[in-house]
Amino acid sequence: MFKPVIVAALGTSLLASGAFAQTPAELEEQIASNTEILIEQALADTVGLAFVEDLTTEVGQRLAGSEAEQRARDWSVAELTELGFDNVRVEAFEIPFWSRKSEAVSVLTPAPQNLVATALGGSAATPEGGVSGSVVRFESLAELQAAPISKTDGKIVFIDELTIKTMDGSGYGMGVRKRSGCAQAASDKGALACLIRSVGTQPHRMPHTGIMARDGAEGAGPVAAISGPDADQLTRLLARGPVTVSVDIQTEIKTNAPSGNVIAELTGTDLKDEIVLIGCHLDSWDLGTGALDDGAGCGIVVGAARLIAGLPERPRRTIRVVLYGAEEVGLFGATAYAREHGDDLDKHVLASESDFGAGPIWRFQTRFGEAALPYARTLQSLLMPLGVTPGDNRARGGPDIGILARSGVPVVTPGQNGIDYFDYHHTPDDTFDKIDHDEFRQNVAVYAVFTYVAAATGWDFRKQPEPETAGTE
Amino acid sequence: MFKPVIVAALGTSLLASGAFAQTPAELEEQIASNTEILIEQALADTVGLAFVEDLTTEVGQRLAGSEAEQRARDWSVAELTELGFDNVRVEAFEIPFWSRKSEAVSVLTPAPQNLVATALGGSAATPEGGVSGSVVRFESLAELQAAPISKTDGKIVFIDELTIKTMDGSGYGMGVRKRSGCAQAASDKGALACLIRSVGTQPHRMPHTGIMARDGAEGAGPVAAISGPDADQLTRLLARGPVTVSVDIQTEIKTNAPSGNVIAELTGTDLKDEIVLIGCHLDSWDLGTGALDDGAGCGIVVGAARLIAGLPERPRRTIRVVLYGAEEVGLFGATAYAREHGDDLDKHVLASESDFGAGPIWRFQTRFGEAALPYARTLQSLLMPLGVTPGDNRARGGPDIGILARSGVPVVTPGQNGIDYFDYHHTPDDTFDKIDHDEFRQNVAVYAVFTYVAAATGWDFRKQPEPETAGTE
Repeated sequence: MFKPVIVAALGTSLLASGAFAQTPAELEEQIASNTEILIEQALADTVGLAFVEDLTTEVGQRLAGSEAEQRARDWSVAELTELGFDNVRVEAFEIPFWSRKSEAVSVLTPAPQNLVATALGGSAATPEGGVSGSVVRFESLAELQAAPISKTDGKIVFIDELTIKTMDGSGYGMGVRKRSGCAQAASDKGALACLIRSVGTQPHRMPHTGIMARDGAEGAGPVAAISGPDADQLTRLLARGPVTVSVDIQTEIKTNAPSGNVIAELTGTDLKDEIVLIGCHLDSWDLGTGALDDGAGCGIVVGAARLIAGLPERPRRTIRVVLYGAEEVGLFGATAYAREHGDDLDKHVLASESDFGAGPIWRFQTRFGEAALPYARTLQSLLMPLGVTPGDNRARGGPDIGILARSGVPVVTPGQNGIDYFDYHHTPDDTFDKIDHDEFRQNVAVYAVFTYVAAATGWDFRKQPEPETAGTE
Repeated sequence: MFKPVIVAALGTSLLASGAFAQTPAELEEQIASNTEILIEQALADTVGLAFVEDLTTEVGQRLAGSEAEQRARDWSVAELTELGFDNVRVEAFEIPFWSRKSEAVSVLTPAPQNLVATALGGSAATPEGGVSGSVVRFESLAELQAAPISKTDGKIVFIDELTIKTMDGSGYGMGVRKRSGCAQAASDKGALACLIRSVGTQPHRMPHTGIMARDGAEGAGPVAAISGPDADQLTRLLARGPVTVSVDIQTEIKTNAPSGNVIAELTGTDLKDEIVLIGCHLDSWDLGTGALDDGAGCGIVVGAARLIAGLPERPRRTIRVVLYGAEEVGLFGATAYAREHGDDLDKHVLASESDFGAGPIWRFQTRFGEAALPYARTLQSLLMPLGVTPGDNRARGGPDIGILARSGVPVVTPGQNGIDYFDYHHTPDDTFDKIDHDEFRQNVAVYAVFTYVAAATGWDFRKQPEPETAGTE
């Protein structure tokens, strides 16, 4: 049903392409036919959805550096091998490890009550039994940073800053500042501990964890996030008078813990040394089962690649699926990949990752060489039947492939509607039932189409190719 | 703005009423005027809303028999006195006490992971360190009860029965059967413990507690509720093969703990011995702050009574506000009230309670003597401007006043839309922010109107009054 649109979209781009075993007309016919097959199959996907269902069920949470993340790698290697991928392997590395052992935050006076709270990743432990003190509330990290030390010394500071829900997730970056900065600011100000309003956006009593800092296993002080309703409760109590709370966080840390990237490929044909990389991250936070963050992303890229493997012809380039390890705690997998593959980044013709849940893709951004923009427009045209609007050429590529983008690898960002993403992300509520199956399948379709077309053509997204027909004009 | 409707609704009923100091026309004018005032003030209520906000903030959760419930009584006495009520007092009684100390449910094999769980009220403790065993799943309590003991002996049974969302809460009764019956059934079948799918209706990872049995502090065995997503996870795991779980529940129990009913009145005038009772319950479960269950109910009845106290004239009958204690753990407050006031139940002309959250009232049911139904129709007509439709004459009166209804006290049930009530009820998410202020205020208006009219008239809801005008016909 999509074919006439697809043929129209491909027309001019293929004429401008490089060397083919087929005539442009033959290739146009093949790509149009295969794209139609991919879309129709993706919209009925079962492989990608089963991948995330099985991963989150049979492994559960996958905290970076934990035994559970190890199980996830073993599980993924077995599953990807079973699905027929080539060169399935783990590229191992080590990371500093942090895990919560216990956490409790409660109001002591004037009205004893528990608060729903979770330690942030990398939080320092408190002494056994916790610390307790008066609460001083700030509306932002900046307000805490500007406060006189006399206001905070020996106290427990509380940053009650909202995260705004946005379709593109831009509110999260603002919300995260307090998560990254509170431990250091609190420590600088002589505070005993820091509480932050959870960075999540849901109205439920769900605490939202996340890493405090990217550079090690333990931060400058104890920090816990309390749920939105608990932040409101604490604020109401503070409006009535002084409040003391207890914060008790016990942790386990290790200097070196095992992690790794799981890699699987569909080997290409005449351009098999050229790589189209699609990624996700395999680790998750420990509170939920990491279904949206980022089991879904792995299901989407695995599902898309598996559909391409089932086409009548293998694409020319190699499609590499990378399930990054230890993303949540400091992008360790991304760094390890760049280190391991630094010498052949020029062979990476395109990279993309899925790490923003499973909401419908509404926009397709690229970051191509200026002269390669006709390819961007062609890919965007191919995706229009799936409800995807063209985006700009300023894609950043996401957390794990950002390092590739900054090294000059062309990237695309299929932009998902993430308006509800931070309702679940990093909370106990990030579980399989939160994935809308039809929306997930639209993602599989988008990834299948652009990955396939990038691998089936010889298009150079870095620079304008030589026009094949120039000499005959 | 409501006055013409109100006057029309009152017309015929007042002509049929008993002895008055005023002519029927004067009373009609007064009631119409006061009803209009009450509605307009209720729809801008601040007292009722502040009552629930302050109670849930300044006290928090109010587990029956706990120190927190004691604080709630002290707080309520002070607040009701401050609001100008008469005869503010506590009618004390003792109850068996149960409290959770700790609770943990986790999958041991094949994939170690924590499940979000909470012990049911009255659950037996497990041995220290918990019990562990294979899980056997049942789709209903009946299926467990019919199972051969060979299937369950030494196992952990799991009843995975859904609760259906309904406007009138009828799905809850079905959902509760497994909560009430699982401990005994599990014990009869030699099982180590019982897990149930939470009786709540929300899709989040919120466990839903509640009492197992009404007759004591500790039940037949350990029972925990796991959240809906965790029940789904366990079911998915069981579909893949054998699953073992660990259940660790530690409790505190006492034979006698203090509880009490808090009572406050607006003393009537010429009919002050006759009582119009409006109630709620002051205790709550311990996971949330009991905002919808039943802080809201207390705010609604207190707010309504306070508005009536502000009218130009006191109503003829005494309005008694009863904040029942220890409702959640076995209706101990209701029983104590009936015991204490058994000799003057005939003086209770009407009773009603608010214990179903703060959703808008859409229906007004009565349980009046057949011959008193014209009064039902009049009250229903008065409430129509608030969007309330007439209900039938089969009101049951709710948990706390049910015992009065069964003793012949006329009752009314203002039926709230409870479609979302069990999303929050008995979970950590039952907090003040879940109350819609406008919907809450519509409740205050409904309670103010029927309570005022019942107290301002001499209407006998038990039987047909003598027609005053009969002799002149």
